[in-house]
Amino acid sequence: MKDRVKIAVDAMGGEDSPQKIIEGIEISLKLNKENFFYIYGDELILNKEIKKRLLVSQNSEIINTTEKILDDESPLTAAKKGKNTSMWKTIESLKMKKADISLSAGNTGAMLVISRLLLNTIEGIDKPALAGLWPNKNNMNVVLDLGANIECSEKNLSDFALMGSAFFTSLFKNEKPKIALLNVGLEENKGNDVLKKTYTLLKDYKDKNFIFSGYIEGNHIMDGNVDVIITDGFTGNVALKTAEGTANFITKKLKESLNKISILLSYNSLKRFKDKLDPRKYNGAIFLGLESPLVKSHGSTDAIGFAHSINVCNKIVKGNLIEKIKSNLISVDHNI
Amino acid sequence: MKDRVKIAVDAMGGEDSPQKIIEGIEISLKLNKENFFYIYGDELILNKEIKKRLLVSQNSEIINTTEKILDDESPLTAAKKGKNTSMWKTIESLKMKKADISLSAGNTGAMLVISRLLLNTIEGIDKPALAGLWPNKNNMNVVLDLGANIECSEKNLSDFALMGSAFFTSLFKNEKPKIALLNVGLEENKGNDVLKKTYTLLKDYKDKNFIFSGYIEGNHIMDGNVDVIITDGFTGNVALKTAEGTANFITKKLKESLNKISILLSYNSLKRFKDKLDPRKYNGAIFLGLESPLVKSHGSTDAIGFAHSINVCNKIVKGNLIEKIKSNLISVDHNI
Repeated sequence: MKDRVKIAVDAMGGEDSPQKIIEGIEISLKLNKENFFYIYGDELILNKEIKKRLLVSQNSEIINTTEKILDDESPLTAAKKGKNTSMWKTIESLKMKKADISLSAGNTGAMLVISRLLLNTIEGIDKPALAGLWPNKNNMNVVLDLGANIECSEKNLSDFALMGSAFFTSLFKNEKPKIALLNVGLEENKGNDVLKKTYTLLKDYKDKNFIFSGYIEGNHIMDGNVDVIITDGFTGNVALKTAEGTANFITKKLKESLNKISILLSYNSLKRFKDKLDPRKYNGAIFLGLESPLVKSHGSTDAIGFAHSINVCNKIVKGNLIEKIKSNLISVDHNI
Repeated sequence: MKDRVKIAVDAMGGEDSPQKIIEGIEISLKLNKENFFYIYGDELILNKEIKKRLLVSQNSEIINTTEKILDDESPLTAAKKGKNTSMWKTIESLKMKKADISLSAGNTGAMLVISRLLLNTIEGIDKPALAGLWPNKNNMNVVLDLGANIECSEKNLSDFALMGSAFFTSLFKNEKPKIALLNVGLEENKGNDVLKKTYTLLKDYKDKNFIFSGYIEGNHIMDGNVDVIITDGFTGNVALKTAEGTANFITKKLKESLNKISILLSYNSLKRFKDKLDPRKYNGAIFLGLESPLVKSHGSTDAIGFAHSINVCNKIVKGNLIEKIKSNLISVDHNI
């Protein structure tokens, strides 16, 4: 067990769970046998699912939980339900140092509240943020905050920069990722006061492990010129959802425009197009700033999407994310 | 001249001007002879362009201006240059009651500053906003503010609702448009304080000329379930640009995926798709809240896009936008 990546999985959250969770674990194990899974959920259902899958039963342990948090429950109701739920136990396994990382496709708000109840923040970090992967021309950006913090100070945003660059580096082995602040223009005087103050902070940090690229506008998020994009949770959430809505709208219009013959004739081209944009590849948002890493899979993704988020978990642990965040915090510490 | 819609046009702003401006006027005149144009710009160049186009010379008057505002000039430098520029004169023609509406493809920031210097706001309105058209499943939404006001109060946002619904009604003859507030969730307790206060204001207005649909999230902007979407200028600008960036990214990936044969075989389907999403159709953002209407065409659009924004100008004047805004303000006045 020593060299294995130990992933605690909440098997009961999200659509079609626990079936897709177990299937996703099987898919990921076929590609990578480094991971070992602690699976939290209803033993009876889980055993039935796992019995069919030798690879899963050999590389996992089931921990029976009697309750589950519903996807549409308010975070506070969910937190009160608490201790006997699969989500709570999954996150608690981090506190117990049993698992290296936790993964759930369940209720995001509940995850936010429960993780704050159970885990400390990293020293020096006031607010954890939710970071996600965003496709771009070259590969992927990291964008944060995607909705954990509606209002942010310059201290919060510059912490997000330190955490986001550590996240990018732990996934993609880039020494000095490029960081930009999401704004409505590129000139130094654009935006609100918090952005202007964050700009000054990030520009003036001396021993920083990233390159500060200034401001970026929404139409350039996907250009691939920067690696990490920083924004408050309100703007980030609106931007992410607007991009999703636009992508759905366009692909729907494309489908409407194509007749059956052209779909048949362009089958390979369209498949290539679909593969390139497959949202399952970008599945997995991470809560940054807690003493242990916690990954949120999209509730409506399928087994393949869930397997992608397991892959993100593996990379985060092997990339020493938490150590990297701490080292980024220390490197700029004498500036403050 | 009595029944004609008099449009003052700044011929010198935006890419490829004044050529595209004159060509755009010609395209629009072929479809609709109601409009008469006051064209502001360099007489020598303009005469050369118009000489070739009888339809334009018969339905316009050139007013010579000696200077022009550059597209990349700061708004303040531009405003100082001021009085002899084509943009200034175009906007001034509203103050003089010479034109019914003004149109420019030039520098947006300069337009904002100069229009505030020359024109009064409508009584009761503190801050003008920039409203745009956004495609949706049925037809088009109106979204505002797209960037005129970085920070907004609940008074500003609820004014935007009254102005946006008047704009929608003047374009599309809808008696009671549906209005929603852009937010990160649908529950009443979501978002920041300003949004919650605006929600209460809009919900409680009694004789309002619109239906208040509550909150909307970014992924539903294009669903076609609401007509007018209200947000602050920071969020609106980021959302609009993020949608543009996403659309460009996807259509680029589509092009890369299609080989020559499938492009040839699916020519009609792809043309249909392109036509449906043609951004030129949505060209034309309007400054709402000033005593006279002012339309901004996209700087990089072509003659067809400019002709579309002329069409928006025509509809605004014939739809009595300013009267509709005033009547919306009066109808809710006794609530405040």
